[in-house]
Amino acid sequence: MKKPHLYAPGPTPVPSEALLAMARPIPHHRAPEFEALLAEVRAGLKDLFQTTEEVLLFAATGTGGMEAAVVNTLSPGDTALVIRGGKFGERWGEICEAYGIPFVSIDVAYGKAVDPGLVAAALAKHPETRAVFSTHSETSTGVLHDIQAIAQIVLKTPTLLVVDAITSLGVVDLAMDAWGVDVVIAGSQKALMLPPGLALVGVSRKAWAVVERSRLPKYYFDFVAERKNLVKNQSHFTPAISLIVGLQQTLRMIRSEGLQNVFRRHEQLAAAMRAGVTALGLELFAERPTPAVTAVNAPTSIDGSAIVKTLRERHGVTIAGGQGSMKGKIFRLATMGYADPSDVVVALSALELTLSELGYPSKPGEGIRAAQVVLAGMSNA
Amino acid sequence: MKKPHLYAPGPTPVPSEALLAMARPIPHHRAPEFEALLAEVRAGLKDLFQTTEEVLLFAATGTGGMEAAVVNTLSPGDTALVIRGGKFGERWGEICEAYGIPFVSIDVAYGKAVDPGLVAAALAKHPETRAVFSTHSETSTGVLHDIQAIAQIVLKTPTLLVVDAITSLGVVDLAMDAWGVDVVIAGSQKALMLPPGLALVGVSRKAWAVVERSRLPKYYFDFVAERKNLVKNQSHFTPAISLIVGLQQTLRMIRSEGLQNVFRRHEQLAAAMRAGVTALGLELFAERPTPAVTAVNAPTSIDGSAIVKTLRERHGVTIAGGQGSMKGKIFRLATMGYADPSDVVVALSALELTLSELGYPSKPGEGIRAAQVVLAGMSNA
Repeated sequence: MKKPHLYAPGPTPVPSEALLAMARPIPHHRAPEFEALLAEVRAGLKDLFQTTEEVLLFAATGTGGMEAAVVNTLSPGDTALVIRGGKFGERWGEICEAYGIPFVSIDVAYGKAVDPGLVAAALAKHPETRAVFSTHSETSTGVLHDIQAIAQIVLKTPTLLVVDAITSLGVVDLAMDAWGVDVVIAGSQKALMLPPGLALVGVSRKAWAVVERSRLPKYYFDFVAERKNLVKNQSHFTPAISLIVGLQQTLRMIRSEGLQNVFRRHEQLAAAMRAGVTALGLELFAERPTPAVTAVNAPTSIDGSAIVKTLRERHGVTIAGGQGSMKGKIFRLATMGYADPSDVVVALSALELTLSELGYPSKPGEGIRAAQVVLAGMSNA
Repeated sequence: MKKPHLYAPGPTPVPSEALLAMARPIPHHRAPEFEALLAEVRAGLKDLFQTTEEVLLFAATGTGGMEAAVVNTLSPGDTALVIRGGKFGERWGEICEAYGIPFVSIDVAYGKAVDPGLVAAALAKHPETRAVFSTHSETSTGVLHDIQAIAQIVLKTPTLLVVDAITSLGVVDLAMDAWGVDVVIAGSQKALMLPPGLALVGVSRKAWAVVERSRLPKYYFDFVAERKNLVKNQSHFTPAISLIVGLQQTLRMIRSEGLQNVFRRHEQLAAAMRAGVTALGLELFAERPTPAVTAVNAPTSIDGSAIVKTLRERHGVTIAGGQGSMKGKIFRLATMGYADPSDVVVALSALELTLSELGYPSKPGEGIRAAQVVLAGMSNA
């Protein structure tokens, strides 16, 4: 017997509450029962996004939500500012290119967080910038950018701040209205504890004024048409019904735990994971780590891909390797969404065994011991 | 107790084989187990689409697949021919408009099928037409267009034939390669017996040559990038994992029944349904009916919306009303995907009771009796 353990930065484990709800006979999306469900989901999403505006739902994965944000905020001739410090920051640039939108980029070394001062300087130099596109939690490097500081800068300008919060929403604080973030994009298969296929997009009042005039081509991802239906507990097109049924359950779980408690849990699990890998003599890749996923430098003597492979094949533990130029150099362990202290302990145990099997010198139990110290702090908190 | 019975033309009932498979712990989409599953699904989709080319998968509903077809086959300056005879045909025109593509339209009266001769005439007059966009089974009117005849015309030209087969694939014969259809779009929540959220797009060799040069903007819906990954049993972006897990199951069910038997079953269930409603003195709306959904004129004395409402509230039966200008005038009963003779009998029984409750004169059992005659023919076939 080898139980499957999933530590990928998406998809993340889906709790049985959601799996079983989604296994019920499918409702029709125009039936009154589904309208009532959608009304509850709308309210839950506003709480989660910390906004009073509607959160739009699209049957798509996170990248679809990102493209939707670009085509709904920009028009031909507009220019953008793109913050790039990993695969997902770079994706913003790729989408702008696909739509012929010229952009200035702030390129941050992998593993580093962007200096908000650079955003201020770039906007001062290019005040015509229509939108700043940033990542919050950069899944490819494990870095958390300081969106609150960036928002304070962008807030004072007519420019919009559009944030990929795909692995930050429901993981760390992201007070959309209070901070002044204009578009927030999330995906179902992260802290929302669901299978992939649902993109969620929060849109600020400041952004709506721009969205209503935006002229980049769009049809499936039309914010105005979607909101018009959503306020009537309807969707413009057939929605991802089963995922919305599951979302009702996971939003209830988040509400029951309390959003601030959810943030604390994520931070403490990640702190325990970081303490564990550090105690094993490994180095963290991210200078300013996101609690969503812990990126670790592979020991110089071992290919990171071998760690991923051994964890999976010998221990039933699925983690992620490095992407692009980081392939083989780092590995990534997520404790996002449906995760508790037992997950940290299992991951570190399997990692210790794996490193030992690959010839890396480590004292059995050292990683777990360090994590326990952090977790004990949690129970005293 | 009131059991739920779903006769909507999407979503359709999901068999427990798929529901339970999707309720298992979610696999990671880059794990070897999922690659093996995707290899099986790719083969099953080629059989279902009757093509040797790859069938692309997008985490989106059918409309996303339609937009994908437009942006991957056309470039700025291209023109199109759009066949419109209902809400879904009109959708092709709306998508072309969103992307600034001028088009000639063939407008067919609701309830009628397009005359293929008009397509030949339009292409003769506008030989520069890059693509013909048509619906196969027009869900809003219950009409089946003769795609085989249209394909014979388009095949002889450099123009592409792009077909919305969202409620025809897996319902009626659609021999993509043999007929020469260039792009075929399907959705998961119809004959594929799954929740919505997966668009499937078959692309012919003739179309690929055009797709590779197409210049309308796209990122999420990029055929070339998707195929490049798919042939390695990968996806460009995170796929709709749970739906693909379910698809493995429903493709096995289709394979086990045999595709030609699946078509025969749909035709015989629809024939029984048509016989039943006709025996009740009702008229069919569609001149050339699709087996996917039976569109029925509401009796002049009764608002069609009342029939839909009574069926749902008193009998637990969900059907669809008319859309747009057909609202209240027609109602629609689908026996698509996971449907057998018992579904026809239950629907007709509930419809007879409903009509009686609404004051329409009908003899109890007349509709079911007529359906039984057709169904008996089925068992002798």
